Amino acid sequence: MSTPSCLAIVLAAGLGTRMKSALPKVMHEVGGLPLLGHVLTAVAQAGIDRVAVVIGPDMENVEALVARLSPNASCHIQAERLGTAHAARAASRALADTPDHVLVLFGDTPLVETTTLKRIRARLDQGADLAVLGFEAANPFGYGRLVMDGDQLAAIREERDASETERRITFCNSGIMGFRGPHFASLLEAIGNANAKGEFYLTDAVEIARARGLSVMTESAPEDEVQGINTRAQLAAVEAVFQNRMRNAAMDNGATLVAPETIFFSHDTVLGSDVVVEPNVVFAPGVVVKNGTRIRAFSHLEGADVGAAATLGPYARLRPGARIGEAAHIGNFVEIKNATVEAGAKVNHLTYIGDARVGAKANIGAGTITCNYDGVLKHHTDIGAGAFIGSNSTLVAPVTIGDGAYIAAGSTITDTVSKDALALGRARQSEKPGRAAEIRSRLQKAKRALKGD
Amino acid sequence: MSTPSCLAIVLAAGLGTRMKSALPKVMHEVGGLPLLGHVLTAVAQAGIDRVAVVIGPDMENVEALVARLSPNASCHIQAERLGTAHAARAASRALADTPDHVLVLFGDTPLVETTTLKRIRARLDQGADLAVLGFEAANPFGYGRLVMDGDQLAAIREERDASETERRITFCNSGIMGFRGPHFASLLEAIGNANAKGEFYLTDAVEIARARGLSVMTESAPEDEVQGINTRAQLAAVEAVFQNRMRNAAMDNGATLVAPETIFFSHDTVLGSDVVVEPNVVFAPGVVVKNGTRIRAFSHLEGADVGAAATLGPYARLRPGARIGEAAHIGNFVEIKNATVEAGAKVNHLTYIGDARVGAKANIGAGTITCNYDGVLKHHTDIGAGAFIGSNSTLVAPVTIGDGAYIAAGSTITDTVSKDALALGRARQSEKPGRAAEIRSRLQKAKRALKGD
Amino acid sequence: MSTPSCLAIVLAAGLGTRMKSALPKVMHEVGGLPLLGHVLTAVAQAGIDRVAVVIGPDMENVEALVARLSPNASCHIQAERLGTAHAARAASRALADTPDHVLVLFGDTPLVETTTLKRIRARLDQGADLAVLGFEAANPFGYGRLVMDGDQLAAIREERDASETERRITFCNSGIMGFRGPHFASLLEAIGNANAKGEFYLTDAVEIARARGLSVMTESAPEDEVQGINTRAQLAAVEAVFQNRMRNAAMDNGATLVAPETIFFSHDTVLGSDVVVEPNVVFAPGVVVKNGTRIRAFSHLEGADVGAAATLGPYARLRPGARIGEAAHIGNFVEIKNATVEAGAKVNHLTYIGDARVGAKANIGAGTITCNYDGVLKHHTDIGAGAFIGSNSTLVAPVTIGDGAYIAAGSTITDTVSKDALALGRARQSEKPGRAAEIRSRLQKAKRALKGD
Repeated sequence: MSTPSCLAIVLAAGLGTRMKSALPKVMHEVGGLPLLGHVLTAVAQAGIDRVAVVIGPDMENVEALVARLSPNASCHIQAERLGTAHAARAASRALADTPDHVLVLFGDTPLVETTTLKRIRARLDQGADLAVLGFEAANPFGYGRLVMDGDQLAAIREERDASETERRITFCNSGIMGFRGPHFASLLEAIGNANAKGEFYLTDAVEIARARGLSVMTESAPEDEVQGINTRAQLAAVEAVFQNRMRNAAMDNGATLVAPETIFFSHDTVLGSDVVVEPNVVFAPGVVVKNGTRIRAFSHLEGADVGAAATLGPYARLRPGARIGEAAHIGNFVEIKNATVEAGAKVNHLTYIGDARVGAKANIGAGTITCNYDGVLKHHTDIGAGAFIGSNSTLVAPVTIGDGAYIAAGSTITDTVSKDALALGRARQSEKPGRAAEIRSRLQKAKRALKGD
Repeated sequence: MSTPSCLAIVLAAGLGTRMKSALPKVMHEVGGLPLLGHVLTAVAQAGIDRVAVVIGPDMENVEALVARLSPNASCHIQAERLGTAHAARAASRALADTPDHVLVLFGDTPLVETTTLKRIRARLDQGADLAVLGFEAANPFGYGRLVMDGDQLAAIREERDASETERRITFCNSGIMGFRGPHFASLLEAIGNANAKGEFYLTDAVEIARARGLSVMTESAPEDEVQGINTRAQLAAVEAVFQNRMRNAAMDNGATLVAPETIFFSHDTVLGSDVVVEPNVVFAPGVVVKNGTRIRAFSHLEGADVGAAATLGPYARLRPGARIGEAAHIGNFVEIKNATVEAGAKVNHLTYIGDARVGAKANIGAGTITCNYDGVLKHHTDIGAGAFIGSNSTLVAPVTIGDGAYIAAGSTITDTVSKDALALGRARQSEKPGRAAEIRSRLQKAKRALKGD
Repeated sequence: MSTPSCLAIVLAAGLGTRMKSALPKVMHEVGGLPLLGHVLTAVAQAGIDRVAVVIGPDMENVEALVARLSPNASCHIQAERLGTAHAARAASRALADTPDHVLVLFGDTPLVETTTLKRIRARLDQGADLAVLGFEAANPFGYGRLVMDGDQLAAIREERDASETERRITFCNSGIMGFRGPHFASLLEAIGNANAKGEFYLTDAVEIARARGLSVMTESAPEDEVQGINTRAQLAAVEAVFQNRMRNAAMDNGATLVAPETIFFSHDTVLGSDVVVEPNVVFAPGVVVKNGTRIRAFSHLEGADVGAAATLGPYARLRPGARIGEAAHIGNFVEIKNATVEAGAKVNHLTYIGDARVGAKANIGAGTITCNYDGVLKHHTDIGAGAFIGSNSTLVAPVTIGDGAYIAAGSTITDTVSKDALALGRARQSEKPGRAAEIRSRLQKAKRALKGD
């Protein structure tokens, strides 16, 4: 038996007016990834390769996101917003070649898991013609209740239509559905809009399918997996669920999170075992940290690869392209951008390293700045292995410091420094005896004058 | 019918010994504003313009706060602390001209809302001679219970005097009361001190009023709105309630708070829509942020105006007088104080800009310092539009850098730089071949000598 | 009556495989102290001076910890891991001289309190031959239930062996036990391993003692005090309980924690009264802060003594050996290491002070760096009282700046500066008119060329 084919239709046309945002709703982010990106990822990981995304007019940014994350997916514009069934019809072009399964998902329900999608499809394989994903609601008020008849779903009853008894049902409709492909188009077509708002609701497919004698079953997921997002507060609530997932996964993998509630992950953060993360650390997208590294408090990592047994922070900021070698130290108020810090090197205080290589075991003094930008172009700084850069040095790129070279503190370096050479670029000290006392007295007189004394 | 006049008496004389503090209790802060300030604000916003604050002896700092926030309010010293009615009597001077309403509030109950004060006054307008503000207590133990008799308040029963049945009452006394003005003085006068502590309790007014056949009614508010503060733990609990109010309001207004529980607001913070606030951001008092600006993690803002579509942080610190223009960038480990950064300018790394103007689209290199202080006076730095300040530059104020000028990295600038000029103020680089190797060998020998090898 | 003698046997041999760590389980930290350290501290504070720690093979780091924290304790290696009774037997060497009491504790149950240990011993004094520490479990599933028979413990029933009725018991076994010394060895010897895993369980002592007609009683502690640790998630949960203990103690002592949930303490942090701690502050080990000091947001303190009425942060980083004087100011992005900052001195911005003294009322300009390291040795910088260090100065240690001296901004200082002298070490400014415009035009041409225009 070959694997059944599947089309996922992702509804992503909503304006999200309650977000009060200039951004389409599905472009708001959780874990550093737009909501729609989470759904596309779950779909891809479930092995579903036919994807149709229904978007609204003027949503070029959504289209670009789909093109970037799911190059094979198609986008379909729903010109008017006339309900979920109407939206699904906008994707009908994708149905030319009837798939075995059709899943309907929502771009604003980002936490749905791959395993859940597989369970819905398994229901279809087991004989259901239509499978509705439900959840046990802590407080079912306002949700459509799933009224069961044995293992069959008898009806989805909306709050306003529910009897006293039905209102006590806590098993509710998530909106997510699976269809056997051959039934999908015909059910969709049969849905009407004879209701208060004059819209076409996909949930009506349940009643139609039952009337046709089809099998309508349910699958279930935890409530927080199917939370939809309509407001910024709900966005924050879903972010919180997502963060707890990531935190628990990191701890299960053998990382210590001293205060998990203060560590913020992105969707793609990877931590090795015996990584220790102190309180208040933020992982923006694109970070991999190898075993045994300690990330001290108040650090911020983004697009960075960190080797084993390194020490970062407190207050380390790694920006995209930072590659930190084994047992290297990145200290406080240090920014590393598009730069390799090789094994055992130390960049401990108040430093900016950008577009550079810091050789193995080199020591970068406090206050060192690589001047990588001339106002128009970016240039490279190359610091050799074992070099010692004196504090408060200014390295004007493009420039090369040889292995084992020594830069005197306070120097500005504009030319190549040879291996094992000492380079200086600073003025000689001079002293004017007693002059500080004179200056002080003059300044205080000026201050009194300003005050009109 | 003209608006009824109203006097608010705010009791603020308490020492707060359980705070273990040298500061009067009402001077402790929530959301960056002293507790008493919150009450005065609610009173002012409720349109009450006669305010009498009862303070203890030696509370000049409280008096100064009142003078600053409510210039028309009067302060009255309660020399001895003999109960709430005794405190209210200290304000009797403010009663010379009998107001229509008298509200008695507490300086250590800061979260009471304007709308609640209005509801209490509405009760008086509706016929109550006395109105007591109650709340439904999650755990009523220790609170005075409000014993109702139809819509009338029969009695306030203290824990120790309550019957088994009365102890089950969860509607409790907040202490806050409203009186019809003409009854206030006479009720206050009738309160005695024949009780265990020999003190005069304002709650006794209820019984006296009932005995006189007056109408005594209640109004209610949520428990967390009327939480009083006696300990640092209660102060923290009230701060938490306040922060949640502010967070929810910001999200309702269209700001994204990635992790709301890690964002701390002041009482007067204003965020526009589509402002995105990453985790761990602190807003000290006096901050306004316009639409579409992103505030990255670990930023700290105080007394700052931030334009639209700007990017701040991570680790940006804006101090009072920072004015950030549209689409400007303030990056990591950057401090801006009393300075204007005009539209599109970039101050991205390890920089201090104080008492300055940074012109539109200027670029300030990493490690730049404006030297605004000479030990006695502060001076201004003016950086022209489109100027390029090389990294690790030192700008000694007062100094002017012309539009489009270019400062070489590592320079100290003490004099005016003309428009479009290049200025340098740094030493020429020199090199001593092989000297680093010699130094290293000498130092290592010294180290061995120190160790006694 | 002399005080009864007591031996504490601490079982610390567990590998903690579920931690997925290269570190022995008891070396993981809570509040900056290894788990075992907490238990040893509680034991010492309970006045118990005979301590035997049972460790696994190849746990030299555990042995070293014990030697450091409890020099009189003995370590005993349990070569094979055959259950708790087998582990306790490994400590039998410590029993040569029979103590009055024997307590068996666990190295991975770090929050047990001194007062609890005293209560267990009081039970023994009151006639119990064996006393088991229980707790009321919120969810008892999986725990051994304590089946009582009046004031006697009838049995410890494991989940799998419990009847329906017994499963409803919520009073559960913590594992911690006290024995009258004379019974201990004989009970231990009687424990067999006729069970599924073939291991020797200390809990079997209960049944054996009952059969011998001994008195077996219980003592109880709150559930979160006896939480054991097997996973990183449980480590985080115990850390959270510990942090809340520390936060509440600090507030009880008169410190304001604006947002207690964001303040992280170490086991030995000491805060005075009227210390105000803003959100997001981390106290690593070894910190003492005196009365009235304000610690602003995002500060990180470790091994630091801070005087009264000082101001730290935001973003202040104090490292070991920082000694901050009364009313001194340490500002943003400032690192202080092994240095004394005397009363009233100010180090406000972007500065590194290491291995130094900053005299009273000295003012250190933004961007100042003490160059304390020459690549091999560390050297001292001495800054006199009332000195003024201009911004972006580089002080190359060893160096002495006299009282009241003035360093010009941007200077590199390598030699002694006399009292009240002005020292300069910077190049003179020069200007090339129009050159910036030329450079810009040349660079833009280069950029276009790179793009192949």
